[in-house]
Amino acid sequence: MLSKEEIYEVLRHTDHTCLRPDTTEKDIDILIEESIRFNTASVCIPPSFVSYARRKAPTLNICTVIGFPLGYSTKATKIVESVNALNEGANEVDMVINIGDLKQNNYEKILDEISSIKKAIGNNVLKVIVETCLLTPFEIQEITKIVSSSGADYIKTSTGFSKEGAKDSDIEIFKSNRFPELKIKAAGGIRSLERAKEFIDMGCDRIGASSLVKEAISMGL
Amino acid sequence: MLSKEEIYEVLRHTDHTCLRPDTTEKDIDILIEESIRFNTASVCIPPSFVSYARRKAPTLNICTVIGFPLGYSTKATKIVESVNALNEGANEVDMVINIGDLKQNNYEKILDEISSIKKAIGNNVLKVIVETCLLTPFEIQEITKIVSSSGADYIKTSTGFSKEGAKDSDIEIFKSNRFPELKIKAAGGIRSLERAKEFIDMGCDRIGASSLVKEAISMGL
Repeated sequence: MLSKEEIYEVLRHTDHTCLRPDTTEKDIDILIEESIRFNTASVCIPPSFVSYARRKAPTLNICTVIGFPLGYSTKATKIVESVNALNEGANEVDMVINIGDLKQNNYEKILDEISSIKKAIGNNVLKVIVETCLLTPFEIQEITKIVSSSGADYIKTSTGFSKEGAKDSDIEIFKSNRFPELKIKAAGGIRSLERAKEFIDMGCDRIGASSLVKEAISMGL
Repeated sequence: MLSKEEIYEVLRHTDHTCLRPDTTEKDIDILIEESIRFNTASVCIPPSFVSYARRKAPTLNICTVIGFPLGYSTKATKIVESVNALNEGANEVDMVINIGDLKQNNYEKILDEISSIKKAIGNNVLKVIVETCLLTPFEIQEITKIVSSSGADYIKTSTGFSKEGAKDSDIEIFKSNRFPELKIKAAGGIRSLERAKEFIDMGCDRIGASSLVKEAISMGL
């Protein structure tokens, strides 16, 4: 059982997330309110709600998703989508790699895509989603090296829309192969504060999850 | 049991589809070969493979997906993604509506988004995916009217990435509320030639499916 202090600490590392395809402004309103109340790391929301959220909450840290969740839009589209998101008020973007490129060993193409997006968004935070559940351990190792040298800020396990989310073994492979500056975000299937704390204790700097705040509220916080 | 002629007729109406996130060039090669062999309506492939497929098959009808599969990228991103796809060699684009806008009754915003994309792609074919499994019958009725007046060529049931695919009742609502020029594409969960023929007999002009050609081959065609 986590202490109150531990729960608040977990939430400070949480990207408080609502990415359902039927998300409405009402959902975003609640998300923002909860994010402010519990001081979460960010709200993570669909691109089409970024400008709305920015108008509602001028100082909030807003994260959105790019090429999401399948990763196979083109580099050109991903760059435009990223720059538009910043212009509308986002501070952080979580992009999905082109998984087929990894399967085909097109490592240079992947590196170029990630680096180009990082260049386009400057000092804003870039997280790179690799969708570990579709990768072999060797592919996870190789993509960790690529993301390390790309200039991205985070490597992130999962979209939450594929067959599995973050696993302990994903984090181990990330840690063994990253440059130390590259931070880790665990996401997908993290449905309890206890599980989130385990990922933080493993060395993850961010957690992507949609129900942790609800759990904290249900505990009377 | 379908006759050989009926099977070929079903395949002529089929967008032969491969949209898995781990799709590779090898998958696209097979898809193209099968599409040509069975004279399918098109190949339906991820945006990042359009230029590759166009180089491989100069006269093939190539369809790709926009704002796929969640529909909540911005209008600006969807337009850029559509125009890029045409420039790289696509002939048809299947876009996903912003479902949250429909839930919030932002009918004018939806109409504007679809019309703007149609205007941007000119005479190329636009199919509008409404993801019926996330909608009420009333919402399906209203979106059918919106798509009818947008200038789009098709209304399409499903992405194949949500909880359900095309249902008979979806097609009935489309037919009762569309302008007669608007064609219908059924997609998602259509895993047999017999089921595909049922949708064609109901009045669908296109079927989106990934395994129908395989079934035809397994029957010795």
